[in-house]
Amino acid sequence: MIEIPTYTMAQRLGAEGLGTFWLVFGGCGTAIFAATAIPADAQMAVGVGWLGVAFAFGLTVLTGAYAFGHVSGGHFNPAVSVGLAMAKRFAWKDLPGYVVAQVAGATVAGAVLLVIARGIDGGFDAVESGFATNGYGDRSPMGYNLLSVALIEVVLTAVFLYVILGATAKRAAVGFAGLSIGLSLTLIHLISIPVSNTSVNPARSLGVAWFAGSDALMQVWIFILAPVLGAAIAGFTHSFLLGPDLETVE
Amino acid sequence: MIEIPTYTMAQRLGAEGLGTFWLVFGGCGTAIFAATAIPADAQMAVGVGWLGVAFAFGLTVLTGAYAFGHVSGGHFNPAVSVGLAMAKRFAWKDLPGYVVAQVAGATVAGAVLLVIARGIDGGFDAVESGFATNGYGDRSPMGYNLLSVALIEVVLTAVFLYVILGATAKRAAVGFAGLSIGLSLTLIHLISIPVSNTSVNPARSLGVAWFAGSDALMQVWIFILAPVLGAAIAGFTHSFLLGPDLETVE
Amino acid sequence: MIEIPTYTMAQRLGAEGLGTFWLVFGGCGTAIFAATAIPADAQMAVGVGWLGVAFAFGLTVLTGAYAFGHVSGGHFNPAVSVGLAMAKRFAWKDLPGYVVAQVAGATVAGAVLLVIARGIDGGFDAVESGFATNGYGDRSPMGYNLLSVALIEVVLTAVFLYVILGATAKRAAVGFAGLSIGLSLTLIHLISIPVSNTSVNPARSLGVAWFAGSDALMQVWIFILAPVLGAAIAGFTHSFLLGPDLETVE
Amino acid sequence: MIEIPTYTMAQRLGAEGLGTFWLVFGGCGTAIFAATAIPADAQMAVGVGWLGVAFAFGLTVLTGAYAFGHVSGGHFNPAVSVGLAMAKRFAWKDLPGYVVAQVAGATVAGAVLLVIARGIDGGFDAVESGFATNGYGDRSPMGYNLLSVALIEVVLTAVFLYVILGATAKRAAVGFAGLSIGLSLTLIHLISIPVSNTSVNPARSLGVAWFAGSDALMQVWIFILAPVLGAAIAGFTHSFLLGPDLETVE
Repeated sequence: MIEIPTYTMAQRLGAEGLGTFWLVFGGCGTAIFAATAIPADAQMAVGVGWLGVAFAFGLTVLTGAYAFGHVSGGHFNPAVSVGLAMAKRFAWKDLPGYVVAQVAGATVAGAVLLVIARGIDGGFDAVESGFATNGYGDRSPMGYNLLSVALIEVVLTAVFLYVILGATAKRAAVGFAGLSIGLSLTLIHLISIPVSNTSVNPARSLGVAWFAGSDALMQVWIFILAPVLGAAIAGFTHSFLLGPDLETVE
Repeated sequence: MIEIPTYTMAQRLGAEGLGTFWLVFGGCGTAIFAATAIPADAQMAVGVGWLGVAFAFGLTVLTGAYAFGHVSGGHFNPAVSVGLAMAKRFAWKDLPGYVVAQVAGATVAGAVLLVIARGIDGGFDAVESGFATNGYGDRSPMGYNLLSVALIEVVLTAVFLYVILGATAKRAAVGFAGLSIGLSLTLIHLISIPVSNTSVNPARSLGVAWFAGSDALMQVWIFILAPVLGAAIAGFTHSFLLGPDLETVE
Repeated sequence: MIEIPTYTMAQRLGAEGLGTFWLVFGGCGTAIFAATAIPADAQMAVGVGWLGVAFAFGLTVLTGAYAFGHVSGGHFNPAVSVGLAMAKRFAWKDLPGYVVAQVAGATVAGAVLLVIARGIDGGFDAVESGFATNGYGDRSPMGYNLLSVALIEVVLTAVFLYVILGATAKRAAVGFAGLSIGLSLTLIHLISIPVSNTSVNPARSLGVAWFAGSDALMQVWIFILAPVLGAAIAGFTHSFLLGPDLETVE
Repeated sequence: MIEIPTYTMAQRLGAEGLGTFWLVFGGCGTAIFAATAIPADAQMAVGVGWLGVAFAFGLTVLTGAYAFGHVSGGHFNPAVSVGLAMAKRFAWKDLPGYVVAQVAGATVAGAVLLVIARGIDGGFDAVESGFATNGYGDRSPMGYNLLSVALIEVVLTAVFLYVILGATAKRAAVGFAGLSIGLSLTLIHLISIPVSNTSVNPARSLGVAWFAGSDALMQVWIFILAPVLGAAIAGFTHSFLLGPDLETVE
């Protein structure tokens, strides 16, 4: 998200893979291990709830942006890569490699989470638990239908891209991009976990869906389509709305 | 909130509209979807509560300030525009356009929230739910009367403006205005959600009141009057209290 | 906390009074209105709890530091003023005026909070509710004795001053003092609300104790003594521990 | 974490000791005093839960980094010192002194916490309460086995070091290292408190284990081994993955 110096493509892809691993391991890991966990002897519910999950996702991007953003740009999300390419801030020819690295990092995170989760006393069933997957209808946390889920994913990914494009513009306050982009992902989760369990990121959705059974996988298409559509709309329209001065030509 | 370069008025109004959309969509959306949501199979209450709502409102302004603040100044609030004009940091002639853009963005947010909310299993009644509207008396979350509601809205909006005027002063730490202004809105919500459901922003109040029935609309006047009064007091008095050196002449 | 340009003493005292008003209004206000509030029709407990109170206190200082810190130095706390004077970062001759402004701001905040609190349906009794006062023994939230309360207040105020002195040192990262000092106050509250209801600030303790009955007032001495002692120890010892290079001579 | 000017070794060790004291006093103190505390007359559970503990740990490092980081580099953790040495950012010859200072600071914190905890009405039993120690099997908060605990500690400490090495690289945004490193520790706790009670820091584990009985002490080996292993892996591999340009030669 900050600036891209002369790193090799292998290093850039390594940073994207590591950052997306961190996003899924941290965000989905908090959802799986900590959101509703209550120790047997606890006097009160100590699980971190959806508020904790929202902070976890945001902090993966905030910390990843400052740590790895100067290597790869800190996308960690295929929809972000598409939106930035649409806005001419990222080269279309680099897109396939970035997407592969992101999905690979997310998938490794899902696999490691599954190994750890199975070590709990009493056992763990990824399919039954949901494994932090996204969903609509009876797989939405509060039972929202496909239209609501699609609409909120498109809107939130579009605004996410506006925030990314605005906060990394030349005239924006230097250094604060990682802070505002990371915390915007926290905000996005605060709004939409009850609706769609929050994707805005196809790699995040795929990274856990592989392990959560066929019902989860059969709904994953909308969490590829809607975020990419929202990001593309934002990437295409932002210069009309916010001015061409915002653009950093690559 | 940061500095205003040479953007066209259409772009500035676009940024204000988008930022105020984000404020209402994110803040009121979290209140409507996530504050008290509990999935049927949850082991504990996972809703984000008023703490989550407070962070959501603050993060809309924090992220909006870094993303769109360099375009429009990042007001996202008619009371802020009035207070800045009173303090000679914003041109009175631009006020009507800003207010229209803000109320329009807030209203579109309210409408999109309603469409999404209606997609929940079992249906959604905006009037019965309150739809995140502000209120006093039996419409105050904890039953505070008009005097308490008016007083807290005036005081909080006045301090909000002092924070905005101080944090964007020439001698303040560069770049941190968005952080401190956004988090001051989180603080304001932590204090006052139980009292008034927190407005300090007439556009935020109107954006959801349109859709919540006549009782909600009949109380909205105080959430226009009190924030504007508080902001105007702060704009008028700040130079006596904090020194004319703080002023950035436009 | 940042740097002190040429403001008049009246303006500096105005900033200290306003900042300390904000600290008590925001921190104690959240404790009084929002910590345990549960609306009659709520599906779950939505009050912000001690976590919300901890963020509220920290955010008053974070926002006040960026907004008013360049005017007065952003103490908002007699113990901080004493510690900074001991460390030769603040003139002893300015101490009495600062303390009066801080206690006055805190007291006005307590009075306004009381007026608002009384507007709740069913009425409000400041004495019975505790009114966010500090205490030990049966007035400690979890029943900690005087020794524990005194010890934790001394230790936390001492480290608070170390953080303030370190984060405002010439070699520290520019601009981040307000962030780290504010969030250290959040941390201090996370640790110690159950023990002493957290003071580390005699003005904060006095500002609400006036209104909470004689039992509260009879315990307030320890919340003047312990914070000042901790701050003085830190101010006196920090140059041995952290090096004279840290000092900014006034 | 920021930069290391010409302080004496005694001052650097003092800063490490104080910072690690702060980490254990703040993080473990919040876990012991505040995580599940519910006053007798509370209307709702006001304890800060694991979310509060996660923020507490992170804020100790965030505040310590800005306050003491310019003196000692702000490690506060033997695993961090090892990882930085492995990455050639810290001199191996300084490692023993740093580790002694860190463990000493952590142990003093544990002792002071115990004195304060014993002042509660009804008494306090460090062994029975667990005293915020780390553990696996029946000492894991949710009953995770040794493999899961070891795996999550290795993975999280490794990524923690990647974040530290990336955020303090010359090309990273100036000043934001303390923010991102501190908040990455919050994130790490959000994920892993249910699994291991979160160590990633041998000094933190030892500082409380001394006081929590032989069962706690007999498990502490894995919380020395796993974090050091994870940190060493990251220190050794990061230059291949993220590029030698990241390295700051000491």
